[in-house]
Amino acid sequence: MPELRQNIITREWVIIAKERAKRPHEFIGQKPERPPVPRYDPACPFCVGNEAMTSGESYRIGDREGWKVRVVANRFPALSHEGDRVHSIDGVFRSMTGVGFHEVVIEHRRHDLSPALYPVEDLTNVLASFRERYRELRKDPRIEAVIIFKNHGEGAGTSLQHPHSQVAATPIVPTQIRHRLDEAIRFFDETGECVFCTTLRSELEDKKRIVTANDSFVAFIPYAALSPFHLWIFPKRHASSYDEINDAELSLLAATLKTVLAKVHHGLNDPDYNFSIRSIPAKEGHREYFHWYLTIIPRVARTAGFEIGSGMYINPALPEESAEFLRQVVLD
Amino acid sequence: MPELRQNIITREWVIIAKERAKRPHEFIGQKPERPPVPRYDPACPFCVGNEAMTSGESYRIGDREGWKVRVVANRFPALSHEGDRVHSIDGVFRSMTGVGFHEVVIEHRRHDLSPALYPVEDLTNVLASFRERYRELRKDPRIEAVIIFKNHGEGAGTSLQHPHSQVAATPIVPTQIRHRLDEAIRFFDETGECVFCTTLRSELEDKKRIVTANDSFVAFIPYAALSPFHLWIFPKRHASSYDEINDAELSLLAATLKTVLAKVHHGLNDPDYNFSIRSIPAKEGHREYFHWYLTIIPRVARTAGFEIGSGMYINPALPEESAEFLRQVVLD
Repeated sequence: MPELRQNIITREWVIIAKERAKRPHEFIGQKPERPPVPRYDPACPFCVGNEAMTSGESYRIGDREGWKVRVVANRFPALSHEGDRVHSIDGVFRSMTGVGFHEVVIEHRRHDLSPALYPVEDLTNVLASFRERYRELRKDPRIEAVIIFKNHGEGAGTSLQHPHSQVAATPIVPTQIRHRLDEAIRFFDETGECVFCTTLRSELEDKKRIVTANDSFVAFIPYAALSPFHLWIFPKRHASSYDEINDAELSLLAATLKTVLAKVHHGLNDPDYNFSIRSIPAKEGHREYFHWYLTIIPRVARTAGFEIGSGMYINPALPEESAEFLRQVVLD
Repeated sequence: MPELRQNIITREWVIIAKERAKRPHEFIGQKPERPPVPRYDPACPFCVGNEAMTSGESYRIGDREGWKVRVVANRFPALSHEGDRVHSIDGVFRSMTGVGFHEVVIEHRRHDLSPALYPVEDLTNVLASFRERYRELRKDPRIEAVIIFKNHGEGAGTSLQHPHSQVAATPIVPTQIRHRLDEAIRFFDETGECVFCTTLRSELEDKKRIVTANDSFVAFIPYAALSPFHLWIFPKRHASSYDEINDAELSLLAATLKTVLAKVHHGLNDPDYNFSIRSIPAKEGHREYFHWYLTIIPRVARTAGFEIGSGMYINPALPEESAEFLRQVVLD
């Protein structure tokens, strides 16, 4: 019998398709043989020596030549940082000027690496850069939400090999974030507790879906995971926005994220993936009911018409088995 | 300057990325050369003569040998039609037995065709079969929603070539449908009108995004289309569920859908696509505020981390240009 599970945080129901479920190893991708990626690509705008191919540097760790991380303007921005937020309403046709920010975080000097492969100290620098940009962008009065995300691989929406992630700041609160906030407030009304803290405590007690944990962070496959190897990393300390993270936590988040991405890389043969960091809307402060977190979606299964027609997902993997599989991936 | 547009029906904001927008012809896919698909495949469970390879036939048009459409059980069902709806609540872990229906509609005798290519009369039969199954499945007291959908091509989630679509009946109302219903009621409260009827009237007045129309149906690219060539087909007559469609309308919907899918097929080089039919929850009757419709998503662009992190879409095409492009595709 298949099972429906409800995600208590999003209120979404997922079908865990036990009958048609695949075993974890069936999600290991087959990749065509490709020539090795060079450490440096003279045509890559993110490579060392090609800094003039990017513009609008808003943040850097290290000096101009010896940089470790650079944050630059996206060359094809989805949002423009110039202009005012102007609403236009013409009956059912509602629009707004697309003001905001869209930046690229060049994560590393090396062209051929990814967070699964470069040292954890370098990932700490990337996560610190996210924090600095988050703090800066949320100050802009036109900004309502800051979204940090990474696309790894063509199937996850990027054609650029050089390791990079992105920061977008939008002039509205996206509907999805509004719904989650509403549900979190409703849970708080009913229980007096944060739904994220409660979920984390329950997952730690249940143990079955935990992948790795340290003093400050827990990585787990959610009980109602949307797709195979869908992962969440929750901070143990209650905080509503990513920019509340402190220096000690940055290192521990880097360690957790590195472990998880390395397990995904080695266990599933470097699948394409996305990750994103979700926070409370930018104009909200620290709130008892909302908790930031990081979500990772390896692109090992496809969505189809059922998901489009219903918004409900069919997960062809058992979350408990996926977690067990990742726990057993041994890293050097 | 990019533009944000709000979909008045879903309340979702979309970024229309004018600066990075592609022209319509840039979405024409390049397909590798493949051997022609045979009219009949002896290994295909949906082909004529292989009827014994499927089971649980719940509907058929035509006789056993001369069938035109067959509806059979999905061999790997996401939901099981046996058993009761049993809720289980253990703190934050909420689940339910996965009861429901998951059927396959074998659309045509020919293995090598798709709705863009087979005669419109045959598509009328397929749409009539959807109606019969909808009427039947919604009677089951365990069923809360009936979702009709099609996956065309591997990128849209199917590995089976033979033209087929699916009907799923779920024991809960999916969250996405609840939200749309809430928003439709809110619009009705504020205006006394159906948000779908109002949108249709506005799109017909504005003309710019209309692709094709007849006495009963209008196909258009929504003002806040989520992705390039995202299409909606609305019935002109207000009705809340697909099973309210009458015989005359079935033929006219087939004509509209055939025209749209043929324009997509010939204009964009047979892209993968999904379509789905959205209705009010199964236990609701005819309501002034909700209107069924059909949505088509050609898979010509990818979602990435921004969409995952925010739920907001970036559409790299101008809806008005996409509609103009499709209007100009000449069909024989």
